Amino acid sequence: MRAIQQIDTDDPRSLELGDVDKPELSSGEVLIKIHAAGVNRADLLQARGAYPPPPGASEIIGLECTGTIEDAGDTDYQVGDKVGALLSGGAYAEYVAVPAGQLLPIPEGYSLTEAASVIEVACTVWSNLVMEAGLHEGQTVLIHGGAGGIGTFAIQVAKALGAKVAVTAGSEEKLETCRKYGADILINYREQDFAEELKNSCDVLLDIIGAKYLKQNLKALAKDGHMVIIGMQGGTKAEINLGVLTSKRLTVQGTTLRSRSPEAKAEIVADTVKHVWPWLEDGTVKHHLHGTYPLAEAAKAHEALDSGEVTGTLVLTVAEES
Amino acid sequence: MRAIQQIDTDDPRSLELGDVDKPELSSGEVLIKIHAAGVNRADLLQARGAYPPPPGASEIIGLECTGTIEDAGDTDYQVGDKVGALLSGGAYAEYVAVPAGQLLPIPEGYSLTEAASVIEVACTVWSNLVMEAGLHEGQTVLIHGGAGGIGTFAIQVAKALGAKVAVTAGSEEKLETCRKYGADILINYREQDFAEELKNSCDVLLDIIGAKYLKQNLKALAKDGHMVIIGMQGGTKAEINLGVLTSKRLTVQGTTLRSRSPEAKAEIVADTVKHVWPWLEDGTVKHHLHGTYPLAEAAKAHEALDSGEVTGTLVLTVAEES
Repeated sequence: MRAIQQIDTDDPRSLELGDVDKPELSSGEVLIKIHAAGVNRADLLQARGAYPPPPGASEIIGLECTGTIEDAGDTDYQVGDKVGALLSGGAYAEYVAVPAGQLLPIPEGYSLTEAASVIEVACTVWSNLVMEAGLHEGQTVLIHGGAGGIGTFAIQVAKALGAKVAVTAGSEEKLETCRKYGADILINYREQDFAEELKNSCDVLLDIIGAKYLKQNLKALAKDGHMVIIGMQGGTKAEINLGVLTSKRLTVQGTTLRSRSPEAKAEIVADTVKHVWPWLEDGTVKHHLHGTYPLAEAAKAHEALDSGEVTGTLVLTVAEES
Repeated sequence: MRAIQQIDTDDPRSLELGDVDKPELSSGEVLIKIHAAGVNRADLLQARGAYPPPPGASEIIGLECTGTIEDAGDTDYQVGDKVGALLSGGAYAEYVAVPAGQLLPIPEGYSLTEAASVIEVACTVWSNLVMEAGLHEGQTVLIHGGAGGIGTFAIQVAKALGAKVAVTAGSEEKLETCRKYGADILINYREQDFAEELKNSCDVLLDIIGAKYLKQNLKALAKDGHMVIIGMQGGTKAEINLGVLTSKRLTVQGTTLRSRSPEAKAEIVADTVKHVWPWLEDGTVKHHLHGTYPLAEAAKAHEALDSGEVTGTLVLTVAEES
């Protein structure tokens, strides 16, 4: 089958179509003929060598796809079923093998292309905000990078839950985007100290910055506050004052979705479909597809996402919708 | 009423009996005529000025007591009922007012004196190991200071749950105590690096050290590991590598029992009584009362606990058991 391969491991843009073996099925897996694959920031990191696949995962880039089932193996799925899949890798290809527990239905009203880029973000936001941090009605949540793909999705999910949403972003234009998606408190981090503005008020915090914000994040958290770190754009090593942790009874959690076990992924997928899919289908949560590229142009898609000019998500199209 | 008062705030041993007003009842509270009060390490810290009472709490030292209900207020309790109570303060006295949700029954087979020192430790261990960190059968837990009051109780609760228990302590004699209470893996921290011994194997970690052990604790934790910091005998400020947090999906939580709301305390009390009291009553979990002092000799009790020579707990006796 054809798949994107990185020709030069030192050059993250050296992504080219090549021929590789079709994946073989293990028990409990299905083979998907891929229609479209979502492009995520984690894919850019992997191409730079900064996010290697977990043990046992495909070396091929790509964490989510949609398509049709080509071989249902020993599962209850049927050949020809249209599905989405949360992957540990392998989406930038014609076929991928995936445990049946990681399959999701295509949300009603969504094309396979539109659905291809909503899986990773929906599972990331739901698992961290709700399954880990327990966000619920009446609480306040702080979302850093509110205008990004994860940020805009998280704003809408939090609002749908009945939470109050504070965001940080680096421009008035980006803050306006956050406002449109429902954010209540808009903070321009270039002009304001978010920790001072939000001191002791945030019950839940979704962080993509890491070290650079750690001290301020602890200050912004309310008593019993829970922060989840899912990215470290601001570095990994920081000083922490454990006295603040105990006196405010705070929880600091780090996590990644990709490294989780198939059982944990299946649990996340099931809970995300149960709670978020209805919101996608009735328009409570909107997902904005910015653009598509053919699979062969994966490098161009990466370049576009890396530019920071993309508002919404990007998708690689692999095959025509049948 | 008579109560222990600290005459000189600079001298933690200046604890003397004095006369103060009897507490007044608020709605939902009962007045307890105290029989006995447990002595905790937190009481020593408070006498040193290092652990001030939370807002609204009694200035009088003492976090747990047993006694009889003197005034049931507007609650369903009856005058004369024998009870234990988890307090935010006020136990070193003849009377204390406490929300009814913080009352516990005296475990069957326990005297009021024996029961007075089991409340704080039981609620601390159960709330942190199970309600917060989710310890369950088949997991491995690391308990620092295994031979202490919290340590020996935590070992037994973890074993009763079906967990594998690793402990650290500073002498062979203390490790032998841990072994007798059921610990499986004994580590002398003066001779061994616990992080190297336990690398990536601990699902839950109960920490009383703080900064000094943070890096090693993160190393000892397994994937999805959860550590709860309830003491900081080794300092508060440390460097943390958030990359370790995300790659192993770790949770670092700090907490104190005393500062929690009455509602949160009531929830902890109810769950502790439900799960731990049967183990106290059938001998699965043993609680060792080391000795008693009359209330007037609180300073001597503090001195004894501070010496590190106490194996088990100390109790101040306030009144005869009626």
